Amino acid sequence: MRHWEKDTSVKVSPYLQKFPQLNAFHGKPGFISLVGHRGARGLMPENTIEGFEYILDNDIIAIEFDVLLTKDEVPVITHDFYLSKSITRNAEGNWLLKNGPRISDLTIADLQTFDVGGVDKRSSYGSLYPEQAFLSDVRIPKLSDLLELACLPKGQNLFLLLEIKSDLSIDKRKVIEHIVFEIQKRSLSNRVVLHSFDWDLLDECRLIAPEMPRSYLSQMPESSEDLFDKPTEESSPDFTSLNCSIPEAIQAAGGHLWCPYFKDVTVDLVAEAHNLGLPVCTWTVNEVEDIENMIDTGVDGIITDYTDRAKRILKSRGLNWR
Amino acid sequence: MRHWEKDTSVKVSPYLQKFPQLNAFHGKPGFISLVGHRGARGLMPENTIEGFEYILDNDIIAIEFDVLLTKDEVPVITHDFYLSKSITRNAEGNWLLKNGPRISDLTIADLQTFDVGGVDKRSSYGSLYPEQAFLSDVRIPKLSDLLELACLPKGQNLFLLLEIKSDLSIDKRKVIEHIVFEIQKRSLSNRVVLHSFDWDLLDECRLIAPEMPRSYLSQMPESSEDLFDKPTEESSPDFTSLNCSIPEAIQAAGGHLWCPYFKDVTVDLVAEAHNLGLPVCTWTVNEVEDIENMIDTGVDGIITDYTDRAKRILKSRGLNWR
Repeated sequence: MRHWEKDTSVKVSPYLQKFPQLNAFHGKPGFISLVGHRGARGLMPENTIEGFEYILDNDIIAIEFDVLLTKDEVPVITHDFYLSKSITRNAEGNWLLKNGPRISDLTIADLQTFDVGGVDKRSSYGSLYPEQAFLSDVRIPKLSDLLELACLPKGQNLFLLLEIKSDLSIDKRKVIEHIVFEIQKRSLSNRVVLHSFDWDLLDECRLIAPEMPRSYLSQMPESSEDLFDKPTEESSPDFTSLNCSIPEAIQAAGGHLWCPYFKDVTVDLVAEAHNLGLPVCTWTVNEVEDIENMIDTGVDGIITDYTDRAKRILKSRGLNWR
Repeated sequence: MRHWEKDTSVKVSPYLQKFPQLNAFHGKPGFISLVGHRGARGLMPENTIEGFEYILDNDIIAIEFDVLLTKDEVPVITHDFYLSKSITRNAEGNWLLKNGPRISDLTIADLQTFDVGGVDKRSSYGSLYPEQAFLSDVRIPKLSDLLELACLPKGQNLFLLLEIKSDLSIDKRKVIEHIVFEIQKRSLSNRVVLHSFDWDLLDECRLIAPEMPRSYLSQMPESSEDLFDKPTEESSPDFTSLNCSIPEAIQAAGGHLWCPYFKDVTVDLVAEAHNLGLPVCTWTVNEVEDIENMIDTGVDGIITDYTDRAKRILKSRGLNWR
């Protein structure tokens, strides 16, 4: 079945006019949104300006990335709560010997002495990204660096799926306020979707920044090995004990986008979300077969580390991504 | 192959005389140690005095459990860094609506207002333990409560595999010192093995408490789904980038016990550890088939949530556990 054959039944999001940025994550006949995961982690160092520029140069308009606060409360773009030895070199160019310190224990000045231009390919994490470019003198960016890029002519079509990382040691309100301030002062609210596993945090976003739409991440516990007994992020809802489906719960929370883990996606769930007017972008879809399967489920968008590969697959099926 | 057929080639630990408590985790012909995981989580509320007493009443002498510090620096026995809504009710008897606060943000007095006598069986976590007893008015124990139990006549044969939980926000030295103080002041050093995923923390233990042996936990990243890209605990070594085998690395670190995840255990690795004089206890082995398979690998001990089930299996094979 070709993707657009099903589209006649898809209800469009009722929020497209209020939040034009949702167009970048919404399907339409013959079209699937491609969203670069942490930039394009398969190809370029994750969560770096260099990676985001690569995306822009390669005809992708939507990126996903992660934001945390430093000790001096500067929003920065990085995934882990600590410096990861798999991707971090010190000022002398040597790999960190261990993980840490935590980002919240470092000032922005401290943080910018480290180099995140590549993965340590000997590490288990690094071995996952054999094609990633290895650069040097690359810094963890401030959120403001990326927002400035979005203000330039070359960044004028860039849309941002901004994941706010949450653990129980953060003051959620403070983190949201710092992030929202940076966006608002550049008048970029209409280019951003706020995105989190922490649904309570998203509810705070609704109060603090009602002018930005909200994207709800989910992952079912059974789609992952129960490693340390807590299968999902500590601030994520328990999806097995909801009294309704996940799309219904997101609608009830006033959400505007659903981002399920790809192993949890089914044709029926996508249809249910669409009937509720909720677009669906799935993560992190990297293997050819998985990308093909996700296209067949009718999702609106695919979040991938390999935007080039996904573009080739869409092209081969007569589909487009922008 | 029967377990003891292989035992003629097993070298015993060179540390058995120095650390007699290692006997509780060391195999011998016809014998496999059974270690109750968090007490006996399959049957009784985890990490509770009630669970530990059940173990003692049921002819098991070795228990594994987890220790953290409260805000007022009291070592307490609990697994997560925060109050988990799946196992915690408030003073009114209602399940917590969300995870948190963190244990390190609560005093012991705060903590003891909560009830951890059962799991919420509607939760994904609770659904894993359908046979667990549901009690009320059960408190997160202080480490000292368990140590006092070990000082009583009924606890005189109890041996403790004491896991020190580690994340990057803790002061490792302070945590170790508080724990060691409680043990030393009751003269229980010869009943305890210190146990952690954080090998650096274990190295601190070597300096602070050389009179207690050390157990090294491991889990290979490929034996678990790579959920949020960081497959092992943040303070655990990267086992794929060691320059030697894990048993060799533990021997080099001066370790006395190896505790691998059961999916990583092979006959060859157990034989290698034994040739280095290193006993092997594997975790967390719950299904009948997995317990059978682990017996066949020649491990010294099995850490399980279901001590009763494991006893039945050992009995049916003519083996004993103490």
